[in-house]
Amino acid sequence: MSEKETSPAILQFVALKSLVQEGFWESFSSLKLDKLGIDDSPISITGFCGPCSHPQGSNYLRLSSESLPLDEQSSIASSTIIHGNRNKCPVPGILYNTNTLESFDNLDKQSLLKAEANKIWDDIQSGKALEDPAVLSRFLVISFADLKTWIFQYCVAFPALALDTPASLVEIKAASEYFSSQEAESVSAACKDWRNSPLTTGVPFFLVSVSSDSKASIRHLKDCEACQGDHHQKLLFGFYDPCHRPKNPGWPLLNYLALIRSRWNLETVRFLCYRESRGFPDLNLSLVGQALVTLSSGESAETIPDSVGWELHNKEKRVLQSINLADSMDPVRLAASAVDLNLKLMKWRAVPSLNIDVLSSVKCLLLGAGTLGCEVARLLMRWGIRKITFVDYGKVAMSNPVRQSLYTFEDSIGGGEFKAVAAVKRLKQVFPAIEPSGVVMAIPMPGHPISSQEEDSVLADCKRLSDLIESHDAVFLLTDTRESRWLPSLLCANANKIAINAALGFDSFMVMRHGAGPTSLSDDMQNLDMNKTNKQRLGCYFCNDVVAPQDSMTDRTLDQQCTVTRPGVAPIAGALAVELLGGILQHPLGINAKGDNSSSSNGGNNDDSPLGILPHQIRGSLSQFSQITLLGQASDSCTACSETVISEYRERGNGFLLEAINHPTYLEDLTGLTELKKAANSFNLDWEDDETKDDDVAVVDM
Amino acid sequence: MSEKETSPAILQFVALKSLVQEGFWESFSSLKLDKLGIDDSPISITGFCGPCSHPQGSNYLRLSSESLPLDEQSSIASSTIIHGNRNKCPVPGILYNTNTLESFDNLDKQSLLKAEANKIWDDIQSGKALEDPAVLSRFLVISFADLKTWIFQYCVAFPALALDTPASLVEIKAASEYFSSQEAESVSAACKDWRNSPLTTGVPFFLVSVSSDSKASIRHLKDCEACQGDHHQKLLFGFYDPCHRPKNPGWPLLNYLALIRSRWNLETVRFLCYRESRGFPDLNLSLVGQALVTLSSGESAETIPDSVGWELHNKEKRVLQSINLADSMDPVRLAASAVDLNLKLMKWRAVPSLNIDVLSSVKCLLLGAGTLGCEVARLLMRWGIRKITFVDYGKVAMSNPVRQSLYTFEDSIGGGEFKAVAAVKRLKQVFPAIEPSGVVMAIPMPGHPISSQEEDSVLADCKRLSDLIESHDAVFLLTDTRESRWLPSLLCANANKIAINAALGFDSFMVMRHGAGPTSLSDDMQNLDMNKTNKQRLGCYFCNDVVAPQDSMTDRTLDQQCTVTRPGVAPIAGALAVELLGGILQHPLGINAKGDNSSSSNGGNNDDSPLGILPHQIRGSLSQFSQITLLGQASDSCTACSETVISEYRERGNGFLLEAINHPTYLEDLTGLTELKKAANSFNLDWEDDETKDDDVAVVDM
Repeated sequence: MSEKETSPAILQFVALKSLVQEGFWESFSSLKLDKLGIDDSPISITGFCGPCSHPQGSNYLRLSSESLPLDEQSSIASSTIIHGNRNKCPVPGILYNTNTLESFDNLDKQSLLKAEANKIWDDIQSGKALEDPAVLSRFLVISFADLKTWIFQYCVAFPALALDTPASLVEIKAASEYFSSQEAESVSAACKDWRNSPLTTGVPFFLVSVSSDSKASIRHLKDCEACQGDHHQKLLFGFYDPCHRPKNPGWPLLNYLALIRSRWNLETVRFLCYRESRGFPDLNLSLVGQALVTLSSGESAETIPDSVGWELHNKEKRVLQSINLADSMDPVRLAASAVDLNLKLMKWRAVPSLNIDVLSSVKCLLLGAGTLGCEVARLLMRWGIRKITFVDYGKVAMSNPVRQSLYTFEDSIGGGEFKAVAAVKRLKQVFPAIEPSGVVMAIPMPGHPISSQEEDSVLADCKRLSDLIESHDAVFLLTDTRESRWLPSLLCANANKIAINAALGFDSFMVMRHGAGPTSLSDDMQNLDMNKTNKQRLGCYFCNDVVAPQDSMTDRTLDQQCTVTRPGVAPIAGALAVELLGGILQHPLGINAKGDNSSSSNGGNNDDSPLGILPHQIRGSLSQFSQITLLGQASDSCTACSETVISEYRERGNGFLLEAINHPTYLEDLTGLTELKKAANSFNLDWEDDETKDDDVAVVDM
Repeated sequence: MSEKETSPAILQFVALKSLVQEGFWESFSSLKLDKLGIDDSPISITGFCGPCSHPQGSNYLRLSSESLPLDEQSSIASSTIIHGNRNKCPVPGILYNTNTLESFDNLDKQSLLKAEANKIWDDIQSGKALEDPAVLSRFLVISFADLKTWIFQYCVAFPALALDTPASLVEIKAASEYFSSQEAESVSAACKDWRNSPLTTGVPFFLVSVSSDSKASIRHLKDCEACQGDHHQKLLFGFYDPCHRPKNPGWPLLNYLALIRSRWNLETVRFLCYRESRGFPDLNLSLVGQALVTLSSGESAETIPDSVGWELHNKEKRVLQSINLADSMDPVRLAASAVDLNLKLMKWRAVPSLNIDVLSSVKCLLLGAGTLGCEVARLLMRWGIRKITFVDYGKVAMSNPVRQSLYTFEDSIGGGEFKAVAAVKRLKQVFPAIEPSGVVMAIPMPGHPISSQEEDSVLADCKRLSDLIESHDAVFLLTDTRESRWLPSLLCANANKIAINAALGFDSFMVMRHGAGPTSLSDDMQNLDMNKTNKQRLGCYFCNDVVAPQDSMTDRTLDQQCTVTRPGVAPIAGALAVELLGGILQHPLGINAKGDNSSSSNGGNNDDSPLGILPHQIRGSLSQFSQITLLGQASDSCTACSETVISEYRERGNGFLLEAINHPTYLEDLTGLTELKKAANSFNLDWEDDETKDDDVAVVDM
């Protein structure tokens, strides 16, 4: 007891504190979702610290969005930031983020801390700490990031080598008291230079030597032996001290002392806690102290010291910090992140090669905003597709909201809102970050003759539809009549756009993707014939028909008009239509991908497309709970996608369109279907079977 | 010209007008939707008319909801109404409603009118018109009822036999001027008696004879010959005249004259246009006239007269009337009708034997209001199911609205609304007539041990869940963990309730219906063993397992927690789950229906169920765009639905539940799975295959 009073006081260090900014967790979330996935290996991060810069407050070790490893793709400009600046000296750290709360709880905190402390010890032993003194201060973060709720839990440690025999303090005083005024002036000037030089501003440990003529100079630690050889009035071990306390040095001194004792075997160490005010050296705030570092019995300079350093509550309990970003984030942005979450999680394990960017940038045109249109829009949104345009001329009827999942009762009263308008509104209510638009427009149909007064407006609609298709990447044909699919099919084939077609029967459905247009490979040569020798294209909706689309709406009973279907048909067909688009977008050949069959045992394109096979057509029946894939090639006599038709459309434009609209037999004459049918009549028996098949198609079209 | 001035004026009749009340079209809509379907045969209807009852206004022929043929199932009480009363004398009519607007336009209006006129002529010739004079006035309605928009278009005709030579008017005056005051008093009294007697009030044509002592009596037309034999001061042909005009008789006189001329060959006819005021005979309003009915040359009494009678505009254009019930109906009721429309239309052609009543009355319990719960609720609504209860303890998270189709962004902000609350609210916004409710509750799970303090609340939850299952008809298991399905599976087996199970993998799904409970056939006998010899039950979700459900939620990474699935999986699985329920409800054996296979060439239960086959399990894969049906029988070792487990639950109640919840191996020990697994270990090779299958199941459960 009495001995304790006479012996010098134990040197007490003020613990460093962490300040983890929201940006750190936001950036980490992106990194985790986009790149790391379920990989929970520790990652190198960088903290930022600097000398204390305010007489009333210590500096924190800060973690910001810049603390995370740089993305290779990011610009070079930002890579300079990681070198820090005078107030953001980089401190090396490591982050252990676990995938589950249980793993987080089960982490061996003491071992992790020790591992980091050992790195410091190793760097001291190897001499690396002399070359790059920044490695003397390290930190460690363990965390569990719940990316669903945006709540982050974490603990931070500043591993320190605790000497068996604590250092004792001989004396400590303001640097201004320790130095003569002449020395102080010179020390200040030298420190200012050190801090201002980009080469040294980030070097937080250094030597201050004051010559007998009161001239101070600052040297790198690696020059220590040389310094010691010189005859100095004073040699001090300086460091950037984040602490502001007038009688205690900050945390970095701990490992500094371990270095000094191990490296130079000094027992008495004079140190300078370098602190600043308003960006200038402040020798009133800076401290100079003298510490006694003795080895205990049995302890050698090579013994690895114990490690301490978890941030503690009342010096006892490890601080578990928690931050809820959901509270501070813009709800709309938060929703957008949450929605992306599902997609990004797919990449973690299920489909690592999924290309999410292609999904978010694709523009989809939905022709029809009815039962199928609503389903498809919702599904597209779930696939991360943001740009959705509805085309529909109808209004929301009373019977619609129950079956058409975007609308509510409110949309149907008072005559009903236009579907193309209501769909946009409701989609935004589901997900504010979506970018939908709506066009109230009827699709011109062949075999629905128009008067000459109507010609201008119908041709304007044709032009408008053509422009819409040109400005989108994928077109969904979701109307309720056969003939309204003709012009879009033709325009998609002409513009070589992805077309997905879904049609419902009472308890059956057909979903298909159209093949590429006939001129897709020969546009440059302006030679439509060349293609005939090219590989086969997939068929479109009209390729199997022996009749051109005509007016199918007139004189139909209510159950035929209303597309009476079993409720389950539309959601299934809508889902398959969108999954088909997903498959095309992820397939390296896109619109040109050949049609796979689910029965093909070799798995078809499995290697090509991360999502599995990519069929041409899917037909399903609810009465049999069955589903099959089909494959059909493009027909030379097709009234919508054949070279003959596309070529005629390109040459004659509006004249062609008017003829197709007004003359029921024009398309059949043009494509040779008329001839084909005549020929077929002489083989009546053979055709019976095919007629039956065509009837099936007709049912599907209802 | 000069001849015209000297000859008597042509007798001009005031056309009858129709007043079709909204109730008529409402009732007709029901009849059409519920019974007639696409049958467009003409139907007999009844109009109501009566003598003019107001000096300033003629009476209409009214059509109301009572005008339609009575439903055989309706009460006898209402059948008396069709006989009418003094102000609603029945007039026989016929309705031609077409299924399409085109058919309506193409109706041969003149032929239809002539056909009705011929009926009148035939009745005159046959003498029926004497027995039942009401058949002298007939009417005809042609209509097109657009039951989707609630717009009804129609024309009404009052067929009349137009004599070749128009009747000419000798004189016409107020009856009060024609009769002496004494006669008038007696005529009034006689008419009053006729009108007040239930036997004659509905007989609109009659004879008025006034004897020489000024006493009036009213006789049936069939008594005409007898009357003529008598010596009368005056004999008048009376009829209920709906017209109020002071100088013209109403429309019924036209056919009356045809009868009189044809039957009795009279050339001079004295008629009484009987009219009332405030329910009493009004001889000031009533008219007495004398008409001359001459046969033109070549015309005999047997020549069928021309027919006229379509309601006309300015005596020229046929009136096409149109009524839009949507404007006047309560929007909520209108929405309900509109929603039912889709179902009723199914009966028209696709599924005539569909039982809609069973759908509207069934109560569904949805365990889980997430992605699947939302899909299932929407689909149930489309099948006409009104009573839907959600059970969920979660709140709407930011990522939910995009995938969970009932919620919007608004539901997810500020921490999120409880899903069970938000789902109810949103469902009502889609369809106000729906009757949803929500229960915020977690489902107790086996292998998730609880503390003794929690026991009471967990057991209360078990009780609550049991009560909910008892009070519903069908239970959907739509939660996101395996173990949360155990207690509901057990309770459904215990209560013998329909259970539909849907579970999602990343790009696969499984949908199944559980079989009946093990005690379903032996409850009365309280003998669980008896069932062992009974026919096999279908398996439940746990019947294929060799492990009891345990805690699968702890220590899972984010992609495992979040049920990462391809967007198309949930809508398909949800739709199939609801279609499966639809199939069970329409199947005569209900929960006991055996499991069909889509591959079975005989079509399975096709004859039993109007909706097609009824499989036990459906599994599908989006990566293969394939779908198969599977069949699995109940297992004696099942941890959820075996006799052993149900019997133990019934005997031990809460004790059993706590043991299952707290002790992971209890259920396996109880059912013999522990023994089974031990045995399996000695046949390790054999089990490998099955383990693989179990892995597949585990993936589905994710």
